[in-house]
Amino acid sequence: MGEGPTIGTIAERAGVSTASVSRVLNGLPTRPETVRKVLAAADELGYVPNSAARSLKSRRSHQVAFAMADIGNPVYLEMVREIQPVLKAAGYRLVLHSTGADVAEEIEVLRSLGGRYADGLILIPLRLTAELAAAISAARAPVVVIGSVPEEAGVDNVRTDSRLGVRLALDHLYALGRRRIAFVNGPLDTVPGAARAAAYRDALAALGLPYDEKLVEVGDFYRAEGAAAVRRLLAKGPDVDAIMCANDLIALGALDVLREAGLRVPEDVAVAGMDDTDLAAGAWPPITSVSLGSAERGRRAAELLLARLADDASAKAPRKVVSVRPELVIRASTKGGTR
Amino acid sequence: MGEGPTIGTIAERAGVSTASVSRVLNGLPTRPETVRKVLAAADELGYVPNSAARSLKSRRSHQVAFAMADIGNPVYLEMVREIQPVLKAAGYRLVLHSTGADVAEEIEVLRSLGGRYADGLILIPLRLTAELAAAISAARAPVVVIGSVPEEAGVDNVRTDSRLGVRLALDHLYALGRRRIAFVNGPLDTVPGAARAAAYRDALAALGLPYDEKLVEVGDFYRAEGAAAVRRLLAKGPDVDAIMCANDLIALGALDVLREAGLRVPEDVAVAGMDDTDLAAGAWPPITSVSLGSAERGRRAAELLLARLADDASAKAPRKVVSVRPELVIRASTKGGTR
Repeated sequence: MGEGPTIGTIAERAGVSTASVSRVLNGLPTRPETVRKVLAAADELGYVPNSAARSLKSRRSHQVAFAMADIGNPVYLEMVREIQPVLKAAGYRLVLHSTGADVAEEIEVLRSLGGRYADGLILIPLRLTAELAAAISAARAPVVVIGSVPEEAGVDNVRTDSRLGVRLALDHLYALGRRRIAFVNGPLDTVPGAARAAAYRDALAALGLPYDEKLVEVGDFYRAEGAAAVRRLLAKGPDVDAIMCANDLIALGALDVLREAGLRVPEDVAVAGMDDTDLAAGAWPPITSVSLGSAERGRRAAELLLARLADDASAKAPRKVVSVRPELVIRASTKGGTR
Repeated sequence: MGEGPTIGTIAERAGVSTASVSRVLNGLPTRPETVRKVLAAADELGYVPNSAARSLKSRRSHQVAFAMADIGNPVYLEMVREIQPVLKAAGYRLVLHSTGADVAEEIEVLRSLGGRYADGLILIPLRLTAELAAAISAARAPVVVIGSVPEEAGVDNVRTDSRLGVRLALDHLYALGRRRIAFVNGPLDTVPGAARAAAYRDALAALGLPYDEKLVEVGDFYRAEGAAAVRRLLAKGPDVDAIMCANDLIALGALDVLREAGLRVPEDVAVAGMDDTDLAAGAWPPITSVSLGSAERGRRAAELLLARLADDASAKAPRKVVSVRPELVIRASTKGGTR
C-alpha cells in the first residue's frame, strides 16, 4: 500500500488549513462546505482512512457483536440490556445481528470476525450443526456461546437447565390439581425444542401422568405460530386443563386463542410459558413463566468475553462453562386472583 | 506492513497441509485440532487476516448498520423486518446499534464508519443536535436519516408527518363524542416529542377545544414511564374521557394504569397510541393507533442507501427526501366492541 497522502497534501489540494483536514478526518464538527472539500481532495488523492489502518494494525475495532435468532423476542432483549452496559463500561460498543436462526448467516458472522469488524462475539444459536460448531472453533476472535456447545468447540459457554425449568412448571400445575397438561413446543430440530420435548416427557413420568399425543403440538417460537399450534391442539378436542408453552411468545398466542374460544384462564385452562420476559408479566392475565435467567446469562457471557479480550494470557486459558439455574415465576395465568 | 507470512509458511510451521491452512483461514469446517495448530502458527508468524486486508483495499465490509434508540420498541423492530431482506437481497448483512437515544453514541457510530466496519448507515435520531448534524455531514460512508434532518446535512432522508397523525387521532376521538382528550407525551427535547406537542395544540384549536394543562403530562417513550405519567395525570384529578399517547408503549402503560384505577377502556376513557406496532394490535383491548408507516419508512431508507452504495455516480447525486403518510388504525380501545 506504501505511503499515502498526508494531512498536508490533502489540505493543499482542498485549499483549507491542515487543522480543518484533521477535524474532518477525525469526524469533529466542521462546516459542511469544508467537509465536502476535504473529502473530495482525500478521495482524489486515494487517502486510506486512518482508523481502518489503525484498526487493522491494532486488530481492535472496540466493538463486540451479539448474534441472536430474533430481536423481536424479548428474551434476547433482556440479554442485550445486561450485555450492553457491561461492555460499555469496558470501552466496547455492542453491535447486534438478528439472524432468523439461519445457520448459514451465523457461520458468515463467525467468518466475518476475521475482518475484525468486531473484537469478539456472543452467539446464541438455536440449531447447532456440525458446520456451525466447526465455524465456532475456527473463529478468528473470541466467541462465547449462550446455550449448549460441545466441549471440542473450545469456547466459553453459558448454559441453563431448561429441563429442570419444564419440571418446575409441571410440578406447579400438578400441585394446583391439573392433570391434563398439554405441551406446545417450538421446532424439534432446535436445541431448546428437543430439550423441552424430552423434559415434558420426563416430568409427566415423574408425576405419574400418562403421555398423550393428543396433548402435544409443535409450532414455532413466535406468537402467531404459537397461536396456530394451540388452535390445532384444541381442534383435536382433548380434555385439557393446562397448557405448558415452550416460550412466552407461544403462551401469548395461547391466551389469544383461548380468549377466542371463550375459555377462561386459569379457571378453565391454566397457561404457563418459559423465559419470563416482560411480555409474560405484561400480558392479561399475567403469565406464569419459567425464568431461565436471561439477564444473568447475558451478563455472564459478557463477562466471559471481556476476560478473553482483556489480555493474551487469559485468551489462552481453558474454556469456562457457567450454569444459570431456572426459577418458576408464578402469576395469575395459573393461579387466578393473585398477580 | 510489508509481505506477511504465506499459506505455505503457516502450513510448514503448523505441520499440516496448505489445503488445511486454506480451509481454516477461510473458516471452512476443519478438525478442531487442525484449527488450533493453524491458528497458533498464524499467530506466531504475525499473519494479518486476508479479509481485513481485502476489506481495507476494497473498502467494503458488505455490512450496513442501523442505529436506533431502543431495540425494545417494536417500531424499530418493524423497520428492521423491512430493512433486512432488502439489504440481504443486495448482498449486505445488517448490524444493529441500540443507542439509548444517546447522541454521543450516535456520533461515535458515525465516526466509526471511517473504519469501514459498515459500508453505510441508516440512522433514526431522537435528538438532532448541531454536533450530530455535523457528524452526519462528515460521515465517511453514505448515511440515510429516518426522521427530520436539515438540508445542509446533505443526506437522504425519509420522513413522516406525525403532526397529521396526531390530528387524525384527535379528529377520530372528537367524532366519537370525546371532549376531554388528554395528551401523554415523551420528552419535549426530542424531535418527535416537540412535534407531537405542537400537533396536539394545533388539533385542539382546529376542533375548537380549549388547551387545559391539567390534561397534559410528559414522561418518556417507554411503557413504565408512560404508566407513571398517566398516574400523574389521573392524580391531577382531571375530568378526562380520552387519552392520546405519543407512542404505543405509553398507551400500553395507560391501559395498565386505567385497569388499576378501575376505569373501563373505552367506555370510561378511550385510549389511542402512535406507531401502530404489534403491541397495539396485541394488547387487550387492542389499541387504536396512528400508523406512521414504519415498515415503509424502513424499506424506503434501505432502498435509498442501496442506491448510494450501488455506484459512484449515484453516490454524488443530490439528496433525496421521501415522505410517508400517516394513517389511523381504529381498534377497540376507542371504539368498543369492534376489533
